Amino acid sequence: MSINLETARTIVAAARKFGADKGFSPLTVVVLDAGGNVLAVEREDGSSNKRFEIAHGKAFGAISIGVGSRALMARAEQQPYFVSAAGAAIGGALIPVPGGVLVKADGATIGAVGISGDTSDNDEAAAVAGIEAAGLTPITG
Amino acid sequence: MSINLETARTIVAAARKFGADKGFSPLTVVVLDAGGNVLAVEREDGSSNKRFEIAHGKAFGAISIGVGSRALMARAEQQPYFVSAAGAAIGGALIPVPGGVLVKADGATIGAVGISGDTSDNDEAAAVAGIEAAGLTPITG
Amino acid sequence: MSINLETARTIVAAARKFGADKGFSPLTVVVLDAGGNVLAVEREDGSSNKRFEIAHGKAFGAISIGVGSRALMARAEQQPYFVSAAGAAIGGALIPVPGGVLVKADGATIGAVGISGDTSDNDEAAAVAGIEAAGLTPITG
Amino acid sequence: MSINLETARTIVAAARKFGADKGFSPLTVVVLDAGGNVLAVEREDGSSNKRFEIAHGKAFGAISIGVGSRALMARAEQQPYFVSAAGAAIGGALIPVPGGVLVKADGATIGAVGISGDTSDNDEAAAVAGIEAAGLTPITG
Repeated sequence: MSINLETARTIVAAARKFGADKGFSPLTVVVLDAGGNVLAVEREDGSSNKRFEIAHGKAFGAISIGVGSRALMARAEQQPYFVSAAGAAIGGALIPVPGGVLVKADGATIGAVGISGDTSDNDEAAAVAGIEAAGLTPITG
Repeated sequence: MSINLETARTIVAAARKFGADKGFSPLTVVVLDAGGNVLAVEREDGSSNKRFEIAHGKAFGAISIGVGSRALMARAEQQPYFVSAAGAAIGGALIPVPGGVLVKADGATIGAVGISGDTSDNDEAAAVAGIEAAGLTPITG
Repeated sequence: MSINLETARTIVAAARKFGADKGFSPLTVVVLDAGGNVLAVEREDGSSNKRFEIAHGKAFGAISIGVGSRALMARAEQQPYFVSAAGAAIGGALIPVPGGVLVKADGATIGAVGISGDTSDNDEAAAVAGIEAAGLTPITG
Repeated sequence: MSINLETARTIVAAARKFGADKGFSPLTVVVLDAGGNVLAVEREDGSSNKRFEIAHGKAFGAISIGVGSRALMARAEQQPYFVSAAGAAIGGALIPVPGGVLVKADGATIGAVGISGDTSDNDEAAAVAGIEAAGLTPITG
């Protein structure tokens, strides 16, 4: 099972609404399916040029390794050489800071959400809000 | 001047509606801003894993070189070594088949749309429909 | 809105004059447009071979992430793994030391300037002088 | 011996003037020194995003292999696998179409000029004009 586009759109909309309500800086929201492939992206006006690449790297790192990107940050603090090497190995960037959140349903990982634009903690909060708005379970670390 | 997210969303929705009305295979739609950076993406259910990368390469090739991807196909037919080398040079894939369409307003290039999923001709037709629905001018070649 | 070539040339000339007046080592000055694409470069005689790449990486990092490269240095001091991963993600080098300065006009980011050749602080001062000479607003961090 | 910045600026200005006088599309002009490193770049307003990369690839291919890029096109017509492999080998793109012109003085290669924006033949003509305006000898193939 994997997130479908309609669910991805719900997540994007709810994450963006959460950010707007909280007064966050403009966000970029990326949703990946269970295979780690891009499903939906929106980069808000004023979110800088490469925010897609950063948000993607949070979500792609998370779904690639099977943990939220907050756990990848903890690993980077202890073993930076692992995270650097893993990033080179997975065929795409791995951004090891909060904001890459796994999406679970009935215990299975069905996708991941990556957000960039505000602080890493706020990015993660918006991802969690988006996932919960779709009735799914976020895993942050 | 560059496309904003709201306009990008309008283009995505109208291109998808065009494809659905025509009975096209599931589409992936990518919108880039004037600088060639990702603004919005939607990959429809059933559109295969790496359609984002293909659609992106059509739009990115177009905005990088300043012509629609149909013109890049014509160039590739005559000088395949040029298109291959250009792809290596621009720091991102360049997909030289129809479906990467420049977006113009008042004579200036303000973004590009890339679509993949059906035939290249149909992908391009959906991109044109999306751009025109936003009141903007498509350049296909 | 983006810097045009004539403004970029004004910035380059003023930054170089500032450096010459202060007795700085030979500078390389790079100006990028709002999309992060190269507009103008001058490498002064005696500025070493790959100074273009260094100056470009300061400006490209800044415009990609939306902060001056001084802020990227602060982030690198705290989270070196983030800055390293972000550099891999954005499709081009990110040099996290001062001397990559955003260019703002009416609150919008319209480009970035990167300078390398003297100390990072002096590189940044020359970038600021160049931007101000063009009547624009520099953001260093 | 190598081109200095003042000579590079003369070449850029003369090439641009030639293009403007002839009514060419907006050009991007790149000058490399004898070592193949960037000396000066100007991308005219309306010259598309990645024209620096294309013009650079013409000049870098030329100075890397020691022939004008017109000769590299002839080689690509006969042995596309050589040009493709050489491009991968030289640590930067090699664009094998006219417009990358060696700069000679007293029989020695002292730099290269790459231009992109109009047809390859016109790009080359502008490069030749720029080099001759600096009292130097262009080698196109």
